[in-house]
Amino acid sequence: MSQTVKAYGTKGADKPLQELDIKRREPNDEDVHIEITYCGVCHSDIHTARNEWHNSTYPVVPGHEIIGRVREVGSKVSRFKVGDLVGVGCMVDSCQECNPCKQDLEQFCEKGCTFTYNSPDPHLGGQTYGGYSTHVVVKEEFVLKVPENIDEKGAAPLLCAGITTWSPLSHWKVGKGDKVGVVGLGGLGHMGIKFASALGAHVVMITRSPDKAGDAHSLGADEVLLSTDEKAMQAQANSFDFILNTIPVGHEMDPYISLLKIDATMVLVGAVEPLKPFHGGNIIMGRKRIAGSLIGGIAETQEMLDFCGEHNIVSDIELIKMQDINEAYERVVASDVKYRFVIDMQSLKD
Amino acid sequence: MSQTVKAYGTKGADKPLQELDIKRREPNDEDVHIEITYCGVCHSDIHTARNEWHNSTYPVVPGHEIIGRVREVGSKVSRFKVGDLVGVGCMVDSCQECNPCKQDLEQFCEKGCTFTYNSPDPHLGGQTYGGYSTHVVVKEEFVLKVPENIDEKGAAPLLCAGITTWSPLSHWKVGKGDKVGVVGLGGLGHMGIKFASALGAHVVMITRSPDKAGDAHSLGADEVLLSTDEKAMQAQANSFDFILNTIPVGHEMDPYISLLKIDATMVLVGAVEPLKPFHGGNIIMGRKRIAGSLIGGIAETQEMLDFCGEHNIVSDIELIKMQDINEAYERVVASDVKYRFVIDMQSLKD
Repeated sequence: MSQTVKAYGTKGADKPLQELDIKRREPNDEDVHIEITYCGVCHSDIHTARNEWHNSTYPVVPGHEIIGRVREVGSKVSRFKVGDLVGVGCMVDSCQECNPCKQDLEQFCEKGCTFTYNSPDPHLGGQTYGGYSTHVVVKEEFVLKVPENIDEKGAAPLLCAGITTWSPLSHWKVGKGDKVGVVGLGGLGHMGIKFASALGAHVVMITRSPDKAGDAHSLGADEVLLSTDEKAMQAQANSFDFILNTIPVGHEMDPYISLLKIDATMVLVGAVEPLKPFHGGNIIMGRKRIAGSLIGGIAETQEMLDFCGEHNIVSDIELIKMQDINEAYERVVASDVKYRFVIDMQSLKD
Repeated sequence: MSQTVKAYGTKGADKPLQELDIKRREPNDEDVHIEITYCGVCHSDIHTARNEWHNSTYPVVPGHEIIGRVREVGSKVSRFKVGDLVGVGCMVDSCQECNPCKQDLEQFCEKGCTFTYNSPDPHLGGQTYGGYSTHVVVKEEFVLKVPENIDEKGAAPLLCAGITTWSPLSHWKVGKGDKVGVVGLGGLGHMGIKFASALGAHVVMITRSPDKAGDAHSLGADEVLLSTDEKAMQAQANSFDFILNTIPVGHEMDPYISLLKIDATMVLVGAVEPLKPFHGGNIIMGRKRIAGSLIGGIAETQEMLDFCGEHNIVSDIELIKMQDINEAYERVVASDVKYRFVIDMQSLKD
């Protein structure tokens, strides 16, 4: 049993995104049927649309920063009712039985979680379709409550950029009194600054670009450190309790490792590719740590959204129409967005 | 005030080690004067003798795995008496005032600890001279008690190879029920296996060399995993709680990272040089960690020696005369030693 809805997607790596009809399952007892109002544009959407990770099955309908209103709930759904403001992030299902799932780490489900798009669809076959669409049907456990007091449009990127930066800050217990570096000022980095600042840390934006200083301060950074300024980098050597590294490509890590205190950690959240070699001595001296982090579990995502409600935190966004998506992709690739595009899904419904 | 004692050292990077007369300070109130009985041969000795780390000041007298008997104590020395069996490791002094020193992490002293050899000597000027010598004078705080029940000769390597492998196992709380990998079977690796096994872990020796399996089992490994066997590596993917990586040179890390469980750590203790690039996605998936570790603090070294006394743990060694040191260096470089050379210092006294 399925319904046909409007979406935007691509039929091949070299083809532009265009309007498509896709099928969504009829909601079952445990499902929430959501009318999508906004959807953020993540760089992963582009990697997948263009098959840059060599795992795309076409057509691809991207979008995993979904905000919407509940239109319908299955008979067993207890946490949501029609009209609720809700979100859906990068995952729509997981086995919920393995150790990682039981520890609220669905992103590391041993059987592989079902991603919001480009994952095998256990209901309709084929692959899952993401949030560049008018509607989506999602199992209750993977639907998040979005606080009504925060801006709906700006809330969309919280579902990926938000949780990706929140999770490591929360997991490594960043808080008051900590000196925290955020490397890279893009969709992820700007959320990292907002969160670390709201958590009470002394936040240092670390960037190659002097022209990002103004924005960094507006977003909550206490200092800006130019990674190209060797003297400034040297002056802050061994002084950071934690570094959130959002650089999305392979890069030299030694300069950032040198900034860490004894026993301090740098977490990589962006560079899903080979890194440049670093010097073993740089982590051996000072017992330093390099770690990774991938989005976050569902419970942790809810915790992040609740925190955003309390602290009135959303992403800085630029609202676009669905029809402008191909141009937006070019601008994301050129790092020309402050700091996240969000699609107004009304434009697809009109 | 100084005394002249016999030592073995080198006057240049390309010169063999030979007998030298060196000066030791007359012990002051806080000093312990030690008659050296045995000294281990560490690969660092060779790097320094040959100026391979580009920081050697000649003459270099290596040796930081020192065992001896107390010959004389200063008037303020309270923990040692004449005749005690004692050890000296890689450090002979530190500021003892900075934060790392106050936290028993003298190896990370902010002012720089005084290493046992090739460090500026605050007492006599010039540089410190290590344990390839008949006597040494060391500040009480940097002298370790060696349990009388363990073999003196085998105890020497505990002062560097021992603490280097003990410290990360202790810091990351390796114990019963943990699956621990030890990568590399040399001076460090063979101690790692002994310690991890004595701590109750399930120990897997990870090596490229099938011919090391017999020794690994004798040393306490429960399993041997050939890193060249892709199927075997795949079968153990995501299953290790902790990996102690003793490889002394830059190497591919991805195969070992793949073995780690979610949130598990691989600690590097050997590769004080540039590592090969690893894939960011490999630590991002599973929130894995790579960390470094450098020898250990003085309190931790004492804890390790006490543990060795309780569990009767020493290094497997090959005893040599001081005069055989140049040949021994060639064999260390060729990895032809099981598992540590120890110099019988009587040979220098005869």
